[in-house]
Amino acid sequence: MTETNFKLIIEYDGTHYHGWQRQRQDRTIQGEIEAAIQKMTRQKITLIGSGRTDAGVHALAQVANFRCQTDIKPDALLAGLNSLLPSDVVIKHCQPVASSFHARYQVQSKIYRYRIRNHSLPSALGRDFEWHVRKQLKLSEMQNAVACIPGTYDFKAFEGAGSPRNDTIRTIFQAQLVKIDPDHLVFTIQANGFLRFMVRNIVGTLVAVGLQKISAGEFKKILLSKDRNLAGPTAPPQGLVLVQVIY
Amino acid sequence: MTETNFKLIIEYDGTHYHGWQRQRQDRTIQGEIEAAIQKMTRQKITLIGSGRTDAGVHALAQVANFRCQTDIKPDALLAGLNSLLPSDVVIKHCQPVASSFHARYQVQSKIYRYRIRNHSLPSALGRDFEWHVRKQLKLSEMQNAVACIPGTYDFKAFEGAGSPRNDTIRTIFQAQLVKIDPDHLVFTIQANGFLRFMVRNIVGTLVAVGLQKISAGEFKKILLSKDRNLAGPTAPPQGLVLVQVIY
Repeated sequence: MTETNFKLIIEYDGTHYHGWQRQRQDRTIQGEIEAAIQKMTRQKITLIGSGRTDAGVHALAQVANFRCQTDIKPDALLAGLNSLLPSDVVIKHCQPVASSFHARYQVQSKIYRYRIRNHSLPSALGRDFEWHVRKQLKLSEMQNAVACIPGTYDFKAFEGAGSPRNDTIRTIFQAQLVKIDPDHLVFTIQANGFLRFMVRNIVGTLVAVGLQKISAGEFKKILLSKDRNLAGPTAPPQGLVLVQVIY
Repeated sequence: MTETNFKLIIEYDGTHYHGWQRQRQDRTIQGEIEAAIQKMTRQKITLIGSGRTDAGVHALAQVANFRCQTDIKPDALLAGLNSLLPSDVVIKHCQPVASSFHARYQVQSKIYRYRIRNHSLPSALGRDFEWHVRKQLKLSEMQNAVACIPGTYDFKAFEGAGSPRNDTIRTIFQAQLVKIDPDHLVFTIQANGFLRFMVRNIVGTLVAVGLQKISAGEFKKILLSKDRNLAGPTAPPQGLVLVQVIY
């Protein structure tokens, strides 16, 4: 048996998981999928994700790869994994790729989407997939702030506390905020990489703009400040979805 | 304190409930809301729903009423109930109505919606809100069958087994089936009343048409047959949502 490098595309509902990354005790997406692969292939493998997602965050198309010596065909692997995995994790694609493919190192950009419910009442059906903001948000002011986001900056101000990296410079290719119906806003952002909590900190600060606690001009100053203490609160995880990973 | 008749409009995610109707042991929507009202008003009340929904079925706007002697204002009642209720049940409106209002007896019509995912793979994010049908459905043939549905008929053929009623004649005002995106069909039906499992049995039989097990002509014959044994399987509950109750 020769070694094959398999690429997976994975959809998951993160509600009942402690995020992507394998942990000793808690249930994680990576842990569940690795266990299912090991059950099928009877080999210890490591699943390399394009990056972590935090507890409660979802993915429509997370990408991961693993190397394995097996004769199992990709279609059979996909069907088998889906029958072993719980219904809130679905493998959407499974294909052999060049042995050089690495799901994390070769990422060109990622797209995340964040959904906000702006209504006096929460939604029972949407509760696991949106942030409920009661007070009315001023959309135009938020959109002015969003227009400042694209570009290459040091995003230290929007990095999660307690998880510092050496390199906090990222390039945002595009960012937009759209009202998709009378009660919902959707924020979409594409960048060459994201710091921990970066999207949620940006969204939390955008909501502070929408609540007119800070202005769009102040948003831009915070972005440039590299000072985490100036940014707004971290938006809750359930509104966030990893939509696409581009290689 | 005078007696007030309160009308509620309720949204719920039925995934974790044994349906609407109060039961001794199991968690139900009616049971949860009655308990919350009794906690606030310190009175034993009965919540009258527009009708039952089965385990796993959702509602965007179930209607119910209850009579109670209280000085609590409707807005305070709404806020208080929502703070007591779990997040998968939300009271959307609470208002005093004429003492003659009865949420079940005075229904003019109801609208239900059923969502089908037609794709080789299930969806992790949509799994609690749709029926996953793997094999490709022939939409045009299903739409031909749907066109037969409006009218006044004896719907005995689509009644759930083991729950017979004397009067099984219902009037369907409208029914339609729409492809909302490449992977999803949505069936909408409005009638003056529904038998138990009626929507789910209609959808199950429509899917048999889509799979070309039976023709649109045979669908019509089954509808007219009053024979439950001829209809297709009962579609699963999670695709069904009570959308509106009209008085």
